[in-house]
Amino acid sequence: MGYSTVFGLACGQTNLSMGEFGLIQQFFRDACQKANALDHPLALGIGDDAAILAPVPEGHQIVMTTDTLVEGRHYWADVDPQSLGHKVLAVSLSDLAAMGAKPWAFTLSVALRSVQTEWLAAFMRGMSALADRYRIDLVGGDTVGLAAQVSSAESFSVTALGLVPQGRALRRDGLQPGDRIWVSGDLGDGQWAVRHSLRARKLLWPEPRLDLGLALQEVAHAAIDVSDGLSSELSHMVVASRGRSQIPLWVEVSLPALSGCLGGLLRSAIAVGQIQPQEACRDAAGSGDEYELVFSASDQATPAIQAISARLGLPLTPIGWVRQPMTHGPDTDWPTKSASVPAVQNECLVWHDREGRRVSQDQAPARGFDHFAVTR
Amino acid sequence: MGYSTVFGLACGQTNLSMGEFGLIQQFFRDACQKANALDHPLALGIGDDAAILAPVPEGHQIVMTTDTLVEGRHYWADVDPQSLGHKVLAVSLSDLAAMGAKPWAFTLSVALRSVQTEWLAAFMRGMSALADRYRIDLVGGDTVGLAAQVSSAESFSVTALGLVPQGRALRRDGLQPGDRIWVSGDLGDGQWAVRHSLRARKLLWPEPRLDLGLALQEVAHAAIDVSDGLSSELSHMVVASRGRSQIPLWVEVSLPALSGCLGGLLRSAIAVGQIQPQEACRDAAGSGDEYELVFSASDQATPAIQAISARLGLPLTPIGWVRQPMTHGPDTDWPTKSASVPAVQNECLVWHDREGRRVSQDQAPARGFDHFAVTR
Repeated sequence: MGYSTVFGLACGQTNLSMGEFGLIQQFFRDACQKANALDHPLALGIGDDAAILAPVPEGHQIVMTTDTLVEGRHYWADVDPQSLGHKVLAVSLSDLAAMGAKPWAFTLSVALRSVQTEWLAAFMRGMSALADRYRIDLVGGDTVGLAAQVSSAESFSVTALGLVPQGRALRRDGLQPGDRIWVSGDLGDGQWAVRHSLRARKLLWPEPRLDLGLALQEVAHAAIDVSDGLSSELSHMVVASRGRSQIPLWVEVSLPALSGCLGGLLRSAIAVGQIQPQEACRDAAGSGDEYELVFSASDQATPAIQAISARLGLPLTPIGWVRQPMTHGPDTDWPTKSASVPAVQNECLVWHDREGRRVSQDQAPARGFDHFAVTR
Repeated sequence: MGYSTVFGLACGQTNLSMGEFGLIQQFFRDACQKANALDHPLALGIGDDAAILAPVPEGHQIVMTTDTLVEGRHYWADVDPQSLGHKVLAVSLSDLAAMGAKPWAFTLSVALRSVQTEWLAAFMRGMSALADRYRIDLVGGDTVGLAAQVSSAESFSVTALGLVPQGRALRRDGLQPGDRIWVSGDLGDGQWAVRHSLRARKLLWPEPRLDLGLALQEVAHAAIDVSDGLSSELSHMVVASRGRSQIPLWVEVSLPALSGCLGGLLRSAIAVGQIQPQEACRDAAGSGDEYELVFSASDQATPAIQAISARLGLPLTPIGWVRQPMTHGPDTDWPTKSASVPAVQNECLVWHDREGRRVSQDQAPARGFDHFAVTR
């Protein structure tokens, strides 16, 4: 309520004890750095009705994103608290990365049944380490005690602000016919880890691709991060880009191309015969909680993208093309041999097999996947 | 997660149905205006990984605040949804008011067990009406389905951004010895309404004092909004101001002065003999959920403050003074006859009765009050 950004002074509004609130206050204040949005004489962090941020650097705009993680829904109750602290912030940083933005400031709201000192300290260590690494300031938050709602799930909500040079934000609606589609890092281990109850790095410690997002400002036409799954994200890009460009475009993706960006767990599963390669590629296309970036760029930008990949030490894999109906231009402009069109009008994606043939509907990757809903 | 600001496309990550998400998307998009932070060719609202805000007007800073309201904790399950939509945004706007900021942009996160169309439509009507009135843009959000956590409390979280001219934000730590303390509107009906189960306007439809906050930029030294209760808020101001000024100051408040700003419910209760006047004043000092502003200004600013009160048609009541120990200056500088000091070192508040005598500890107002925790 009015106690925003005053973690420790809000005990009148909650049913956590004064001592418990003192602890939370301590943890949050200790985690509060002054690296960026608070690094200014006119700025003010935790401790007032609202934080006062440094003036926005000249020629920049703010991007704003919010994400809530709920116990039993986005993480399990027995999660490593340090990894949870990391992940709660990482999912918002991944959104900033997808916009090509530089992290600037964030707030944190927590709803807790009780305060476990060691658990909370570990949570904040995980969050602070990531915040420090990307120089984003915790500027305030809110704390709610759930003691009267003992059966309520705990939850953590982050709202993050990032900075982009004016007019340079990466949007998802910028696909252009003839663009090549790329994906960063690797895909598939998120889903595999949940299915096999593995405490995988990908799931617990997702790495927001912030350096990549910044580098792509210059070369990419469109970008999105993979939270729901590659297949879903590509569909989101197509729908948004059709709306903006008024071109009935679609994306043609090579399913086998995904074998070039499978996660380590999936690759070893293939090696020991636990899964067939094509099935692994389908898994990768439907796997959420990946936090890789998918982006499009003109074919001419390929050398620049390869240079970015080399500089960052991050694999960037070309997996498809943005297509448009023949009536919109000569087919010869398209740098691919298989100029197939969607089977169903308005379909966003066409999947191709190794021979350039259309993958049938029942063999194509599913759109999106909710790990936690399915497994628990 | 990565689906921030894309309400309708997030169904892969939840256990609400696609149709339910479509509805939520519709409600949020319909509520999305382009009055302020989105009123620019370079801006982008709901529909991408993050919102892109208009460039910050030259010479301005951003203030940022976040608040979460939880069912059974901050509101009752049978609340009028339209008033809840209003209140969820109003508590954040009240924080902006206390900073002297102009509303600019906000995000909304919701965690729902299920989607009740009419309920949600009414909620958004309440929220939109307030957003429209103060020209603040809903720029994005997040939606979580709690179907798998059927016993979880629903919750609503708002993060709001406001604009202030550089260096002009009103802080709570600016109390100066000799300042007069003022309070806006009236106090006490929040607590009275909860205690007597009355659906009072004050509790359901709090009015953020945004116009007052803007007007006070020029004249006030410090400000805070009353969410926990006047007594708590004054203590917060004293603690923060001591920290900033290194002066061991305190606030002297006249308990009977509060009779000049009692809420209508309390005044009529006095009239019919339900409560004694002094008891009503104590209630008013401890009543939370009021969303009035408390502020301090030099005595010379009194005519300017009276002019603001007249212009806004909003009562502003002087209730006390900021004091400091004699050793810090001549007593004659203090515009009050009763120069008493706190009985206990570090005490923040000294309450006086009609005769200027110190109110004994057991007769002084309590610090803070949690309506919902006490009554349910």
